[in-house]
Amino acid sequence: MTIGILGCGQLGRMLALAGRPLELDCVFLCPDEVSCAAAAGERILADYTDASALQNFARKIDVATYEFENVPVGALETIAQDVPVRPKIEALSTGQNRLAEKRLFESLGIPVPRYTKVDSVEDLAAAVEEISLPAVLKKRREGYDGKGQAVLHSPKDIDRAWEQVGRQPAILEAFVEFEREVSIIGVRGLDGSTLFYPLSENVHHQGILRVASSLVDDPMQAQAEAYLDRLLSRLDYVGVLALELLQANGRLLANEFAPRVHNSGHWTIEGAQTSQFENHLRAVAGLPLGSTRAVEHVAMVNFIGGLPPLAEVLEIPGAHMHDYGKSPRPGRKVGHATVRAASRREVKARVARLCALADAAGA
Amino acid sequence: MTIGILGCGQLGRMLALAGRPLELDCVFLCPDEVSCAAAAGERILADYTDASALQNFARKIDVATYEFENVPVGALETIAQDVPVRPKIEALSTGQNRLAEKRLFESLGIPVPRYTKVDSVEDLAAAVEEISLPAVLKKRREGYDGKGQAVLHSPKDIDRAWEQVGRQPAILEAFVEFEREVSIIGVRGLDGSTLFYPLSENVHHQGILRVASSLVDDPMQAQAEAYLDRLLSRLDYVGVLALELLQANGRLLANEFAPRVHNSGHWTIEGAQTSQFENHLRAVAGLPLGSTRAVEHVAMVNFIGGLPPLAEVLEIPGAHMHDYGKSPRPGRKVGHATVRAASRREVKARVARLCALADAAGA
Repeated sequence: MTIGILGCGQLGRMLALAGRPLELDCVFLCPDEVSCAAAAGERILADYTDASALQNFARKIDVATYEFENVPVGALETIAQDVPVRPKIEALSTGQNRLAEKRLFESLGIPVPRYTKVDSVEDLAAAVEEISLPAVLKKRREGYDGKGQAVLHSPKDIDRAWEQVGRQPAILEAFVEFEREVSIIGVRGLDGSTLFYPLSENVHHQGILRVASSLVDDPMQAQAEAYLDRLLSRLDYVGVLALELLQANGRLLANEFAPRVHNSGHWTIEGAQTSQFENHLRAVAGLPLGSTRAVEHVAMVNFIGGLPPLAEVLEIPGAHMHDYGKSPRPGRKVGHATVRAASRREVKARVARLCALADAAGA
Repeated sequence: MTIGILGCGQLGRMLALAGRPLELDCVFLCPDEVSCAAAAGERILADYTDASALQNFARKIDVATYEFENVPVGALETIAQDVPVRPKIEALSTGQNRLAEKRLFESLGIPVPRYTKVDSVEDLAAAVEEISLPAVLKKRREGYDGKGQAVLHSPKDIDRAWEQVGRQPAILEAFVEFEREVSIIGVRGLDGSTLFYPLSENVHHQGILRVASSLVDDPMQAQAEAYLDRLLSRLDYVGVLALELLQANGRLLANEFAPRVHNSGHWTIEGAQTSQFENHLRAVAGLPLGSTRAVEHVAMVNFIGGLPPLAEVLEIPGAHMHDYGKSPRPGRKVGHATVRAASRREVKARVARLCALADAAGA
């Protein structure tokens, strides 16, 4: 079976590597000259708006999926004329619009931080009154890794913030004094069966995920699962979906979802019975899902801007390297390492060593 | 770094897949038209005696290794003029000759079944007197998976047995009434550091490995490690080496060794902190070795002659599929599946399900 993937970054690469032992072939389509996924499967270099390339892509594959949430909806509509697209286009289109996403959360009874819609600088002034400061202005489309966001501390910040998001449709969201950031990753099969991974605790630095740790038997697991379950059912979802949550005053608030495999789930390669990558492929291929049970304790550290020497990473007990084969550039995720151990305490000590290496290598 | 691999079967394929996340590229050389490793790395189609192809191969790589123990020694000698060959050629040449192998075991104080050298049918008649029956006649070179062997129950079998091994130099070995077959896999780094995997308990069927199960905390672990340690040191070995042992009367006897990754270690992909494939690459690349510690309980079932339907394998809890991408043929290993679980009891129940699928699919 051949699975077509729109997007060809490291998520695509790791999907294709997970497919290899199952003889599930991945074919990529993306407009990026340089692609780290191309080392793992055939790649069609084309724009997402190139209808003939999309049709050619569709002819090569049995089912299509995506590893990048800013793929134009039109690309999926073209492909869907020939082969099934999983997850459904609605999941992608909702995830591409922060306002639609918040409204979906609300309609499912999933709590979100207070927010309001902002379409002009006048709206923003009114929103600041309504939400009160500090607050975060986020553009509605195409934001990722903290990009397209501006924090407002005082009404004097209104003009700067509006410029910063590019004078584009946005939302203003109350700044949440959170205790921790967690995410839950779930997978839903073609038959509607659903499984959830253990929660991940995530630490960001300058808007980019830096460390993600598996949380075995966390007290918030059941609540997070209940929220994600509603989302998966409503979207009649097939594949892996990640829900980012903030914990404040002992309560979980939904931040955003990603209709794809997610950086906070990279630890599932070593830390779960079946990785998020394999389970996404199993789901879109209509195969039975694999157990999401934890295998020991595990955490992942991103390498951003540069990679430490391989030998120094592998010297750390229980460390596994994932080099994406990308050329380094400031702020760019070029790899990650996972550490697995029999106790959470050991994992923490090893994460500290990995972070020191990541800092020394990062640009 | 680029690692050259002589041989291009499933062992090469799994080596290359283990190298991908580390950005260790594998290049293969082999004379087989159809190669399941070619899906995982560049492949040079050439005979092992083709000097110019070997030189071309050597120019592409930083270090050479082998995944097939019947590579002619001359091929390695040619390559060694340009790049290091790991493990050393001596390990390969000793492993290719059952007599040299037995003598090496004896010189290291590693017990072996009683045996004697046989170079003619007259030798065989004398050997039958010396060893007494039942006994097994094994040709000295190029035997594998039970091929090139003949069991003798009575002196009347002498002529048939001698024909059966092709009237070639052989050894006659006392038939051992063993309690179980186990193997130990170890890895030795370029710096001489050595690590051992938990013992594997192996069940063969018609001379071919069928089930291999990890044995956590087995009472024979220390003895097996001691034997393998002597072998690794004597051969100044770099890489993974597998030692097959028979347990009889509570004592371990060496059967043979393989100077390469081994079928009885496939469960290390899911069942050990670092797989035998990754550790072999780490060793030959001069990188630090990864922990060989067990991760839960695990066993592997070979698919011989045919593969069961993928969905039926993946339906078994904790099952992972490894399809080698080979066309089925009677007696041919075309894939394996691993089951991992929190207890040995669960693993056994799942192995039984896998064996039923393997039986139904096998030719």
